[in-house]
Formats: sequence, structure tokens, C-alpha cells
Amino acid sequence: MDVYISGAGMTKFGRSKEPLEAMMAEAASTALKEARLERVDAIYIGVMSVEEFVGDSNFAALLTDTLGLAGVPSTRVETASSTGAGAFETAFYAVASGHMKHILVLAGEKMTHLPTAKTTRILSEAIDRSERRYGATMPALAAMIAQKYAREFNLSQLKLEDILAQVAVKNHSNGYLNPYAQFRKIITKDDYLESQIVSYPLRLYDCAPITDGASAMVLTSQPTPIKVSGIGHATDTSAVGHRASFTSFNSTREAAHKAYAMSQLNPSDIQFAEVHDAFTPFEIIGTEDLGFFSAGEGWKALEEGVTLLRGRLPVNPSGGLKARGHPVGASGLAQLVEIVYQLRGEAGTERQLERAEIGLAHSIGGLGNNNLVTILERSDRKRIPKAGAIPFQEGWNQEDQCEKSVPKKRILSPPPAEVGTLETFTTLYAVPEGFRSPLTLGLVKTKGGPVVMACNPDYRSPNELKIGKTVSLKTREGLYVFEKLTLWNRLKNWLISLPKSY
Amino acid sequence: MDVYISGAGMTKFGRSKEPLEAMMAEAASTALKEARLERVDAIYIGVMSVEEFVGDSNFAALLTDTLGLAGVPSTRVETASSTGAGAFETAFYAVASGHMKHILVLAGEKMTHLPTAKTTRILSEAIDRSERRYGATMPALAAMIAQKYAREFNLSQLKLEDILAQVAVKNHSNGYLNPYAQFRKIITKDDYLESQIVSYPLRLYDCAPITDGASAMVLTSQPTPIKVSGIGHATDTSAVGHRASFTSFNSTREAAHKAYAMSQLNPSDIQFAEVHDAFTPFEIIGTEDLGFFSAGEGWKALEEGVTLLRGRLPVNPSGGLKARGHPVGASGLAQLVEIVYQLRGEAGTERQLERAEIGLAHSIGGLGNNNLVTILERSDRKRIPKAGAIPFQEGWNQEDQCEKSVPKKRILSPPPAEVGTLETFTTLYAVPEGFRSPLTLGLVKTKGGPVVMACNPDYRSPNELKIGKTVSLKTREGLYVFEKLTLWNRLKNWLISLPKSY
Repeated sequence: MDVYISGAGMTKFGRSKEPLEAMMAEAASTALKEARLERVDAIYIGVMSVEEFVGDSNFAALLTDTLGLAGVPSTRVETASSTGAGAFETAFYAVASGHMKHILVLAGEKMTHLPTAKTTRILSEAIDRSERRYGATMPALAAMIAQKYAREFNLSQLKLEDILAQVAVKNHSNGYLNPYAQFRKIITKDDYLESQIVSYPLRLYDCAPITDGASAMVLTSQPTPIKVSGIGHATDTSAVGHRASFTSFNSTREAAHKAYAMSQLNPSDIQFAEVHDAFTPFEIIGTEDLGFFSAGEGWKALEEGVTLLRGRLPVNPSGGLKARGHPVGASGLAQLVEIVYQLRGEAGTERQLERAEIGLAHSIGGLGNNNLVTILERSDRKRIPKAGAIPFQEGWNQEDQCEKSVPKKRILSPPPAEVGTLETFTTLYAVPEGFRSPLTLGLVKTKGGPVVMACNPDYRSPNELKIGKTVSLKTREGLYVFEKLTLWNRLKNWLISLPKSY
Repeated sequence: MDVYISGAGMTKFGRSKEPLEAMMAEAASTALKEARLERVDAIYIGVMSVEEFVGDSNFAALLTDTLGLAGVPSTRVETASSTGAGAFETAFYAVASGHMKHILVLAGEKMTHLPTAKTTRILSEAIDRSERRYGATMPALAAMIAQKYAREFNLSQLKLEDILAQVAVKNHSNGYLNPYAQFRKIITKDDYLESQIVSYPLRLYDCAPITDGASAMVLTSQPTPIKVSGIGHATDTSAVGHRASFTSFNSTREAAHKAYAMSQLNPSDIQFAEVHDAFTPFEIIGTEDLGFFSAGEGWKALEEGVTLLRGRLPVNPSGGLKARGHPVGASGLAQLVEIVYQLRGEAGTERQLERAEIGLAHSIGGLGNNNLVTILERSDRKRIPKAGAIPFQEGWNQEDQCEKSVPKKRILSPPPAEVGTLETFTTLYAVPEGFRSPLTLGLVKTKGGPVVMACNPDYRSPNELKIGKTVSLKTREGLYVFEKLTLWNRLKNWLISLPKSY
């Protein structure tokens, strides 16, 4: 059964004094009014860490009562930071089953009332324990991925800085036009460069802010002008170190593959996209993983202006998570609300895209391990039948890619090793509670073993470290510690390795 | 599209040293082996408060990786203490949509490693804030419901004690035969009476224990011997005080109504049931709400032995939440695992029911405000077509019932009142952190206003209070305080009510 959208709504994102239920009720009210419904068959609630952010569990029932809809079946759905998209997907299948006619999807999060250190700790619980215990935060892992991307595609640190700044500048410029956005200010590259480093090389302006907000949508089996064209969803290993690639998210690639297959579309059919930019490098990698550009070409397309609001393939016309804000539970659904507004031609004269018949939303859960891709299109869009197979599927051996990256078992305590190769690293300045700043972290490929997280208490300047170099690896207080393999270190290691009877 | 069960599994419930992922992997492994599958199209994970119990968020991805299935779409589903049933329902619709062939549903919770006070606090977050702030816990609210039931159906305190004891004795006697149960010991009425009072009149043996455990099931679109016959789901007001009835759960009644309608069955078709008995009075009320017995007749059926293992309609052949244990996220699915084992004739010679072609599971979320009813049947069961409408639907004007109990808006701060009627009350001995024991709580119907929670700091003996009596109601430090309306109190109230100019 086909699934359509009959209503959409969201609150202004930002810092709000309203309780979470009130924000969510506001978004729901708009969506229900648009759908001309007072009651629905079911409600799916997307909240990420509501127990810890606001101290309530049993939130689906609580919220349904707040809406004056006590009685209606209500289910909380969660896929970390892609939760809004996850709730939408769940509702999609329920409508597609034919058992439900109208479903309200409602997503939100309230975050700004807590101290930043507490919010950081809550968000860090989404990171694998084996990496979290080193003090790795979301920005730290994103920074390592940015470093690796620069290395893999031969970008100098200056060049990397330049393209990340371009993502931030572009998305702020789009957000400036979006009445729902948290930040409605244009920033320049100079502003970007003046912002403090959070985790080298990522600056404050590379990271989405902490935000309150809610978004809502009504899904229906009755035809409306907007149709759900395809949905894909995939996970990846919990630890970043266990993945085959650090410059591409397999979960995005697989989710995109499924969404394109369900909708019988190619990346080239997509006219605009909302791409998860909780960190600027993720937008560039996202445009590659979604098949818009080849691997290592995303930054070039950005430089050429392809993804600008008036470019050939606008990315994040809403301002993205960067400028619209990122209430973790709500963002995945807010992206879809933006797509609905664009498809309807209701995005406002300045922000409205010319070509807006088909749009894609890409949402990342955790550090890229629970991702969803959703494609919405206008129901009246004319489809030109394509001859033969879908080229996108042909050129992309998804199965193999996936097999490679999946370890048969989660490796919890890999064997210690003497030396390894530094895969990527970062120096984190905004450290979680209990850690000293700055904190240098690296992913180290052990000889013949797995990639492990390791810390380096000595190196304060990231310039002293280089991806691809051999480093020594020690265990200290149950943690891996890596060091640059200087001549002295080599000698020390050799001395230590001598049998004790000498 | 019809939905079938191709695999089921669970761990032994109880106190476990294994981490939650390991328990869930064990249950999943059994279910997948039975289904002869190594990979599934999607995974739905049911955990209630995993962030607070074990400190991990992004749990769906973490668990999928633990299973060696990184890549497979994975979504966390939560409906408070009915979470396992909620995850099952979500998977049901995904298979029914035709988009998925095989889905793994996996539910679990790890609770015993925390101090009881902390566990109590986490579980209390499921209670509406307006009631929770008085120190109301799950046992306290269940105790108030038991009191009200006794009053409404003219049971003396001794009689109430007697029938609650019978539920505990019956379920322990069933649990004794269940290799998966936490408590495999037979208890007598004397044992019951010796157990301490948690919240008057509920004793320790009236409450399900704190438990670790996991359960799993594989749903498929390919016909197997066991079919999902019907599912219903409904919510209710967040605050217990806002409901039309305190002796019946509207969410159960509505969920049951939907499940019977989907399966085209009547309560009289059900051969056995797993009924949510987190508190013994809930089993009695459940058997009434499910339509097995009329309102106020559940305790009689229990006395007559109807619900015994060898009775006409066995209830909780597994031992129920009471004896099998209650890992909050897992219980709803564990009930369904028991039904599968019974339908297959695999429950073991002593526990296997003779008539086991159709079984029902009833799961309560929160304090009865997010409930699910699921009916499973043998695919080879012969259905005798019934003439005319379903009598169950005829006799029960569900719509009206529902309308009455749904307030248009959540009442957060009801107006103060001078006097009210004591609807029900309890004295709580196992109080949450920050409260003094014993704590007497009551639900008070204000004159012309709503029912509010109120505390009574003076009355230590519940015998001094009586349901239906007029009580005085004051606001003290932002809380409602109720007092017996003695002559002195009446006089005091009258004096206070005099205009100040006197």
C-alpha cells in the first residue's frame, strides 16, 4: 500500500522555555490541522534520551495524554540521533500494512536546560564503550574522520579547513532564510576561523549546536500531493575502529541503496537533499555516500557551488543541522518537514527551490551506525521509465562492501601489541567530565590485529603526529597509549623487550 | 499480509552476571536457530530504560553489532513496561506491510545490579509527574487500585488479602514448573502473610521481582504452524487520578477490543492467557478487562479455580511476571514466548496445557496507560464460522467508555479545594529516596473538580481512613495534603474560612 503525507509541522528550533511536551504538542497541532484530523489510528514518538534529558520515562503515553489523545496507541521509537527518521520509517510500515489509515509521527528533544558537560555525557553514551572510555566524544570521532578524509584524498590541512568552512558558511547562509532555524545569521570564513577549536581540526562552527525543538508529520494511506517514495535503513559496527572505512559510512551507503531500490530511482533523479551535517565533514562524506558524487569528489562539488541553494543539487536548503539546530530526537523528522515544504512550494520566496519535485533526507544515528535515507516526491511527478537495470545498483557492489566491514563478533578486548599504524587522530579540547584537556586520541591499526582507540598523554600539538606513521602501543591502567616511534622510543621498546634474565 | 512466528527464545530469568547484550544475544541465537536464519531484514529491540539501567544509548545499533549483524536495520521500540509487546507489534506491522520477510524482535532488561532504591526511582519515572512528586511508586498506585477494587465489589480487607494471596500462590506454583522462571518455589498462604507490607495492602509477594532477562522472536511472512491472530494497543491518561475508573484499565479494554476485532474472536475463544501481574490485583482486573469475566467477578473465577493450570481458562501458566520475573523491557515478549511454547506443545509434561490452540497475552505499560493485547493461534486450528456479529463487541460500548475517560487537556495544576472525597488510599512503606516512611497517599475527588493525589503526614494506620469519606484538602509546600474531617478539623476549616475582617 502506498503511503502519503497529509500534514507537517515543526516548532522554531533554538532555546525554548517551554517543556518538551508543549513543544511537541505545538508541532503536532500544526500537522494535525493540515491533515484535518482530530484523532489518528496511532502515534509514533521519536525522542532519543528523554529519560536523561527531562527525567520522564513512559513518554509515549505521557505525550499522547498531553495531546488530549489518551486512548490512541502510542509507541516510542529510537535510533539515536536519527530517531526522527526512525519514527517516520516505523509509521511508514504501519500505514503500508493496511492496518492503519492515519498516523501521527512526532519527534522532539529538550537539551538546552542542562549544563553542556552533562549534555555531552548523555550524547556520548551513543558511542561504543570501548572508545567512550578514552574520553572520545562525538566531535572527537568526527574530527578523526575529517583528518582521515583529508589524508585519503590528499587535502592539505589548509584545504581541509577551507572546505569545512564552506559547508558552515553555506548552511548558515541557508539558515538565515529559514524562519524555523536556530541560527539566522550569515557567517564568513573569518568568523569560522575565529571560532574555537573543539577537537582538532574541527571548530565550534563545524558542529551542530545544542537545541530544543519538535517536528511532526501525518502519514496516511489516502492519496495526497506528497508521496513517500522510498526508505532505507542500515546499521554499522558500534566501534568506529571496527569499520572497513573511516571516510565513508557504510550505513549511509546501504540505507541509500535500499531507498533507491524501493523508489526505483537513481541518485541523479534527486533534485535536492537534506544531508546530516551534525559535523561539517559529514555533509561532504554524505553527498558521496548517497551517490551524488564519487568518493573524494564531494568537496570539489561543494567548491564548485553545486550544493548551494541556487546550485544544481542544493544540499541542506533548510540550513541543515548546523544552522537549523539539532534537537537530537527531532532532526531526522525536521529534515522531512523541510522537504515537504519545498515539494509544496511553501519554503518562502527566498528559500524556495525551483526544481522541487523529489527530495531526499539522510539522517545519521550515533557515530554513523544507525542511518536512514528517505525519499519524498510529488505525487503528480511524471516518471520517465528507464530502460534496463538501475545504473546505481550496477556500479556498486554493496554486498561485498558490507561483508568486509562486519566482524563476526564484537571485539571487546583486543590483544595488546607493541607497535601499530596511526590510522587517524585528533586533539580534543572540550573534554568530557573526568578527563584533562587537551586530550589526544588516535585510532591505531595493530599489527595483524584490529584497529583500537588509544590515547596519547604527551603530545599537545597535533602537528607532531602524522597519519600513516608507525607508533608504539602500550597498555597503561587498562587503556591503550600510543607514542610517536622516535629513535629513543624505539631503543626503549627494544630494551624493554629483552628477556628479563639479561 | 498474514504474519507468522518462526522462532522463539528466552534466557532463564533471574539475577544474571552477564551483560545485557550477552543475555539478549543468547535469546536471539535460540530464536534465529529455530527460524533457520543467519540474517534478517530488520531487528526491533525492546528495552525500557537501558540508558539509566546500563548507561548505553544507541542500543539498537550496539546490540545488532553484538549479534554479528552490523548492517541490518535496527530500531529500538519502547512502551514502558509493555515494551516487549510493543516491539512485537511494531515488527508485526513491518512484516504485514510486505516490505520485510523476516524480522527479529529482541527484548531485555538488566536491573539487579543496581541498588533497589535506584531501580525504584528509574521505574517511578513512568508515573505522571503530578503523582510522582508525592512519592507515589508503582506499588503505591497498585495498592490504591486494590483498595478501590475491594471497596467497589464489597470485599472485606481479609477477603482481599485472601484472593491476592491466591494469585501469588497460583503463579508461584506454575513458576515452580517453568525452567525459565526466576522463582521456582511453591509458596503457601502463610508464606504470603509473612512477607512484609510494601504498600498497604500489598505485600512483597504481591509484587513482581526485580529481574534480569531477555526474550526473542522471529516474525515471518512465510506460513509456519503459529500465526499472529490479532493485536490491539491503547493508551490512557498519564495521571491515574484523571481516569474514569480505578478498578478497570481502559487501555486494556480498548486494546483487547482491537485484538478481538482483528482476529475475529471472542473472549470465550481464548483457551489460556498470560495476564500482566506485576501486582497481583492486576491479574484479577486483567481477566475482567479482557472480557473473560464480568467486572467484579474475576476474584470469584480465581476462587473457583477457573484460572488454575488445570482449570478451564489457565492464566499465567508460565508463573506470570510474579514468579517468572519481570525484566521490564522483556516481559511483554516473554509472555508471547510462553504462548508459542504452549501452542507447540513444548511447555514440558507438567506445565503443558491440554487445550492450547489459541492463547492471549496482555501487557501493561506504565501504571496501565500503554497496554497491548496479542493473540497467537495454531495455523491448523479449525475456525467455526460464527453467525451474526461478535457478541463481545455488541455488549460493550467502547467508544463511550473511552470518551468519558479522556480529558481534553492534561490538567497540570488543578485548583485547590477545601474538601473532597477519598477515592482510595495506601500507606507506602518502601518509599523512594527523599521521602519518609511510612507515607500515606490518597486520591481525592475535589468538589466539582478533578481527582488529585494528596499526602497525609499524620495517619500512620490505614485503619483510620476509609474510602468514600469526606476529607479536608489543603495546599502545603506546593503539595495537596488531606486530613480526616474530624469535628475539630471541621471547626478549624470553618474558622479559617471566615473573612479576615472578622
